[in-house]
Amino acid sequence: MAASTETSVGFVDAAVHHRVQQFYAEQMQLLDRGEAEPWARTFTEDGVFGTSVDPEPARGRAAIAAGAAEATARLAADGVVHRHWLGMLHLRPAADGGLHARSYALVIRTPKGGEPVVWRSCVCEDLLVPTDGGGWLVRERHVHRDDLS
Amino acid sequence: MAASTETSVGFVDAAVHHRVQQFYAEQMQLLDRGEAEPWARTFTEDGVFGTSVDPEPARGRAAIAAGAAEATARLAADGVVHRHWLGMLHLRPAADGGLHARSYALVIRTPKGGEPVVWRSCVCEDLLVPTDGGGWLVRERHVHRDDLS
Amino acid sequence: MAASTETSVGFVDAAVHHRVQQFYAEQMQLLDRGEAEPWARTFTEDGVFGTSVDPEPARGRAAIAAGAAEATARLAADGVVHRHWLGMLHLRPAADGGLHARSYALVIRTPKGGEPVVWRSCVCEDLLVPTDGGGWLVRERHVHRDDLS
Repeated sequence: MAASTETSVGFVDAAVHHRVQQFYAEQMQLLDRGEAEPWARTFTEDGVFGTSVDPEPARGRAAIAAGAAEATARLAADGVVHRHWLGMLHLRPAADGGLHARSYALVIRTPKGGEPVVWRSCVCEDLLVPTDGGGWLVRERHVHRDDLS
Repeated sequence: MAASTETSVGFVDAAVHHRVQQFYAEQMQLLDRGEAEPWARTFTEDGVFGTSVDPEPARGRAAIAAGAAEATARLAADGVVHRHWLGMLHLRPAADGGLHARSYALVIRTPKGGEPVVWRSCVCEDLLVPTDGGGWLVRERHVHRDDLS
Repeated sequence: MAASTETSVGFVDAAVHHRVQQFYAEQMQLLDRGEAEPWARTFTEDGVFGTSVDPEPARGRAAIAAGAAEATARLAADGVVHRHWLGMLHLRPAADGGLHARSYALVIRTPKGGEPVVWRSCVCEDLLVPTDGGGWLVRERHVHRDDLS
């Protein structure tokens, strides 16, 4: 009963897919715990992180860590918690064993004593590169906010 | 230390599970980019797509593509972006190598310059059929909106 | 082109990762359908379930089932539907073949005829233990609400 017409969907290997899922889960948790340095180490040394609102992307781990530390301090001052959810992960092979990853991202924002809201809805486009140990790092990330699209 | 009492949970093969996840990720992204024809090709030729609000389901790829194109035009006219998230995916074997897939779906709606909201919360019930190439197509989909349940 | 610096991210086996994902999907669906007894059987006999608001955790399947039945009755009386989403699942090996699972959880609440809201945003910390059949059970769960953190 195999259907006669193939879908356009391409697939990456199960082992790659599950590792990338685990990579993102840990990466988002590091960010939301305010672990700026370990978060920055999920990017390559020369990693690039751009968003819809920054005129220039952050370049390199030091800049990426500084951005995360600043965001963490602002959240603490405001008495809110952010949770980054990443989903609908679509992977395509890139050059040299890398992966293009296009996913959706939500930021859920909860004030202490208050109600959570969907703070941001975004599309996240990553270029992932493999590490020697079978893991992944982000070489380039561009986050596109839906409200600014 | 294996627990003595088995859970009721059944499992499908890892390779199947990860491919279905990838299938849904790409399918949702096609819809949200307004790619009506490629979206329709993720259903079988005679695919059926019913929702809580349509008196009759859409039948066949042409009808499914027309529905997606209409929705895309309406969103553009309203100046909003929709993102479809599918999660909590539960798979059970169906006849002839197919799969029953029951999942949750959210539609996140973001007006340009505005705040995102959870527009819809739904349960999505699919009958998936395998393709020759190792992929999947939707033969039947029924989307149940929580607000109308 | 493997990157020279390893990320801190650790990985569990693909087969384990996909089974735990399927376990959680079914577990959340059981809860949201109000199937209190099958839900309780996804915990060990002596399972513990604690939240930010309960002075004492529920201990054992009977107590866990009673809590679910009570919640289900309250939702029906209020005319609302809850959907539990679990994501950003991070797994680490625990003693005796178990797993520490740290994930994010959302509760999406939809009143009949109304609009969905994000009712709760939480962090869920589980100790999972393997069953003889290759599945998993929750031995200990602690749910931390972001608004009370």
